This record gives sequence, C-alpha cells and structure tokens, in this order.
Amino acid sequence: MTSYVQRLAERSQSVGSFVCIGLDPPAEVPVEQVASRNRALIEATAPYAACFKPNLAFYEQFGIPGLRALEQTLAAIPEGIPVIADGKRGDVGNTAAAYARSLFEVWGFDAATVNPFQGRDAVEPFLAYEDRGVYLLCRTSNPGSATVQNALLASGEPLYERLAKEMPSWGPNVGLVVGATAPSELVRVRTLAPSTTLLVPGVGTQGGDPAEVVAAVNADFGNMVVNASRSIANAPDPATAARELRDALSNPVSEFKEVAVGDVWRMGRQHPCGGWEWRVYRTGADIGLACLECGRRVMLERRRFEQRAKTRVSTSS
Amino acid sequence: MTSYVQRLAERSQSVGSFVCIGLDPPAEVPVEQVASRNRALIEATAPYAACFKPNLAFYEQFGIPGLRALEQTLAAIPEGIPVIADGKRGDVGNTAAAYARSLFEVWGFDAATVNPFQGRDAVEPFLAYEDRGVYLLCRTSNPGSATVQNALLASGEPLYERLAKEMPSWGPNVGLVVGATAPSELVRVRTLAPSTTLLVPGVGTQGGDPAEVVAAVNADFGNMVVNASRSIANAPDPATAARELRDALSNPVSEFKEVAVGDVWRMGRQHPCGGWEWRVYRTGADIGLACLECGRRVMLERRRFEQRAKTRVSTSS
Repeated sequence: MTSYVQRLAERSQSVGSFVCIGLDPPAEVPVEQVASRNRALIEATAPYAACFKPNLAFYEQFGIPGLRALEQTLAAIPEGIPVIADGKRGDVGNTAAAYARSLFEVWGFDAATVNPFQGRDAVEPFLAYEDRGVYLLCRTSNPGSATVQNALLASGEPLYERLAKEMPSWGPNVGLVVGATAPSELVRVRTLAPSTTLLVPGVGTQGGDPAEVVAAVNADFGNMVVNASRSIANAPDPATAARELRDALSNPVSEFKEVAVGDVWRMGRQHPCGGWEWRVYRTGADIGLACLECGRRVMLERRRFEQRAKTRVSTSS
Repeated sequence: MTSYVQRLAERSQSVGSFVCIGLDPPAEVPVEQVASRNRALIEATAPYAACFKPNLAFYEQFGIPGLRALEQTLAAIPEGIPVIADGKRGDVGNTAAAYARSLFEVWGFDAATVNPFQGRDAVEPFLAYEDRGVYLLCRTSNPGSATVQNALLASGEPLYERLAKEMPSWGPNVGLVVGATAPSELVRVRTLAPSTTLLVPGVGTQGGDPAEVVAAVNADFGNMVVNASRSIANAPDPATAARELRDALSNPVSEFKEVAVGDVWRMGRQHPCGGWEWRVYRTGADIGLACLECGRRVMLERRRFEQRAKTRVSTSS
C-alpha cells in the first residue's frame, strides 16, 4: 500500500510539476456540458498536472445532475494522477466517518481537504485511511480568515501557527492548506512544519506569485502542490497556461547563479544540525557543499542548488 | 418574506416544542430503505417537532442513491416545519456561494449549519439569503474542540467567546451551534449573544441534560432548538421519545415554586439595566416583578417565571 504522499511524489516528479489543476465548473455552464468541458480541460492539462482537484461545491450547486457530472469527470482523469476532493468537510465522530466513507470509499478520492475547527477527534476518521491524504486548513488567504486563523493567542502566536505546529503530529498523512497570497505566512508554516506536504491555493486569479511560493516552501516533489483553477480553465489555451505555471514553479530561478569553489551560501532551509550556511567544494552539473556547522557534505543537482541557495555570504576571490 | 427565525418561532410555538429531530440514517441501513425509514420517523415525530435536521454526511455516505433518499426524505416532511441542512460547509467567495446555492436553491433548505473557520467573508454568501437561517459553529461538544474553539486568546477569553460576541453582528439571520454537554459554556454563549437563535446538539445519546439546557438558554420559541438524533430514531417508540423530550424541554420545572409578595428572586438572565434581582409585587397566574436595580416592573406568566427564576435571595416573611 503506497501512501498518498508517495503516489503524489512519483506523479509530481514524473512530469516535473507542482501544479494542481482545479476542476471547478462555473454556475453559468449548463450542467449537461460540465463533464465534456472538464474532459477537454483534463486532456489538455494532464501532461503538466501533478494532481487534479475538483471542489465539490461546484458540482453540488447543480444538484444530483452535478454529481453525475463529477462521476464522469473522475472517470476522465488518467490512471496514476492523484485526485483531491476539495470539500473542506468537518464534523465529529460517526459523522466525520460518514464523510470519509463518502469521499474515500464511494468516490475513491486519493486525498481530501478537511476543516479542523472541531479538533483532532473530528479529523481522525479521515486519518484512519492510511493510504489517503488529508489536507487540513491552516491559513487560508481570504481577508476574513484573520478572525479565527490569525487570532492572537495568549501564548503570543497566532492560531494558525499553533495549528501548523500541532496538526502534523495527528498522523503521517496530514497535509496543510496554506494560501499563496501571504508568502511570509507560508514561510512561517514551512518553518514550523518542515516536512509536511502543503496544498497551496491562490496563485493565478487570486494574485499569488509562483516564484514567491517556491522560494517560501523550498519545494520538493511530494511536499507541495500549487492549485490553479480559473487562471487555467478560463485561459485561451489551458495547456499553455498549465505548462507555463509548471515552468514557473519548477524553474523559478531566472538568473543562473555564479558558483565558485570556496563560496559560502546561505540556504533557504535549515540543516537538521541547525546550520544555514554551506561552503562550495565542487562545481559542475552537481554542486558539492559542506555544512559550516557540522561539516556534513552533500551533492545537489545545479537546478536544485539554484532553487535552495538564497544569498552568497562570502566569496573565495 | 418571513425570516427563518419567525417561521421557526411560529412552528415551535404552535407545537409547544423546542425539539429538532435529526434525520441521520446509519450506514448499516440499506440505502433502498433509507427514505421509508425516514418517512416513518417523520410521521411519528412531526407532532412534536419544531424542525427537522438531516445531516448531509449520512446521505453522502451512500453516494448518489443516498442523495435520492434525501430528496424523498425532504418530500415527506410536512409543509410548515422548517428543515435545517447540517453540512457544516465552509469555503470562501464564489465557492461558498455555490454551497449556498446548492443548499438553499437546489435543495430548498430553510437553514444551514456553516463552519466559521475561514471568517466572515466566507459566511456572507449564505447570509445573502435573507429568508434563510445560518447556524455558525461556535462551541461544539467533542473533546478535541478545545484545540481551536477553547484556544485562550491574548485578550484573555477563549476563541468561542469572541465568536459568540462577534458573529451575531454578521447578519440578522445568524444563529449559533453550541453543544449541550457543557452547560456552563452554553450560559456564557447565551450571556454574550442574548438574542441569537441557538441550535443545541448533544442531548440524548451524547449525554446532555434537557433541564440544564433550558435553564442555561432561557428558551423562548424561535431562540433555541435542541437536536436529538439517535436517542429518538433508535428508541423503541420514537413518537414517545420525541414527546418526552418536548415535555422535558418545555416544562423543565418539576417543583412548583412558592412565590410570595415581597420575595426577592435572582433571575437566570440579566436585565438590560444590569440588574439580576427582582422583588415580587403581585402573585397569581401572572407574577409581578420590580427590578431592584432600575425599578422597572414586568409581568411574567407563572410558567415563564418558574423557568427564569433561579434562587430566592430573600423572603418577606
């Protein structure tokens, strides 16, 4: 039984993409056309898709015929591409179990978004499905989210930070939803939950910047997907829009970094030993680095190095 | 256009009941039997029902056939009894609008439970339906709810108290969901949101005591409904179980209170002037009371007085 994160990582790596394609049919589309519209969108964007994400609201708005269209939509998604149910369900005990049964057993989704307002016991029935992913809302990007998520706690931290620290301990298949529109909060969440997979909505129509997201998250395949819905579905050519977002997320470093043996670079992510700075001991297609703190040596592909290295602290020359 | 609260109050008063009957088919029932089972439950309990509340999870767990059963269930509810969609939906902007469209326009529910984790702008699309009710989660009764809802804020109050103060200002059709299993928190919410309609789950199987709920809320028709699901649906005789709960909620005072002119009583609810204590100036079918703080005089039906008066502070004799 492979875990959701493994399956996501494999798919994501095989197409070199962090893009999650939202499948959110607008209310104006006649429900009879929803499935065929989605089929065309899926066909055009699948080569660039790490995963697909239908938001259930946009099917429920058409009643039962909308759910028939969801059925046909899911059938059109090629085998091997994970599909996330975005329903933000949340309830307790046997009610949560019924939702989990619906999403994971009846509909067969690989992962689901879940609302943590009712706490851990409300989430556990979802976590009981060991091969499925559960993305818990942590910091959404709408203005009103401040009331609850940014509520300042007596401990001095906003609620979303406490959740980012605590929720990953609820189970190995916990992921977090963090909006792209507040990159500094994305950095905080990544720092507090360094190895948790993130679902990041809010690039495209909502204004989040792909390069900022990648810089904030230090993306590795499997540990992040970035969702775009309207900005791809409504583009004149969705395939091109999806490819461009894939490229913007995968190759965010536009300038080639000059790297010389002896340079010291500060990385965007902390080494487990506590260190942030590394000395280059070898250059080429792979870059050899030694941690200034503990001396450990690693080799990084140049592309990966360019993503992770933030600032040159000193040069050898 | 009558508001939801008006419609609820009329229905509630006409049957003298605060009971909300939950319609939550268990997973073990074959989906083909869900509608007929519900029809029998509705028929037996309607004379005692202020409203009905299907929890959507228990229909979604059967997939599309479950939603067909929901359709048939709604058709079996007599005209004039409000129906609450318990889906605890929550999402932002046009997604929330799609959920509201689904619940209020496609399904025709009178009210819906909504999760406030994403803040006011996520709730507004529901509030835009002026004749419908929106019950926002405030303090649920499960153990894990403490993580978020009881998180202690820098201002010194738990989050649910801030929400109880703030959320009623979001619109005239806001109600709150507060569990029956923590009566002291129910009292806090009622004090902070004195005129907001409450949906109180947790009596019956979950252990909440009807008499404590009524004492905490100072129930008036329209300002409270108390939900029971399994304790009625699984009772040997659901009609009797529903009638008994109606009676327990409507006539919670088992002992007749001895009232004499000159007595001072402390009431369960604060007078707008700030006072809590009242002197009896007249007895009979109606009790005449004068506020010790501001002197204002009111007449209360004896039954209402018996519900509201908490302790005799002093006697005239």
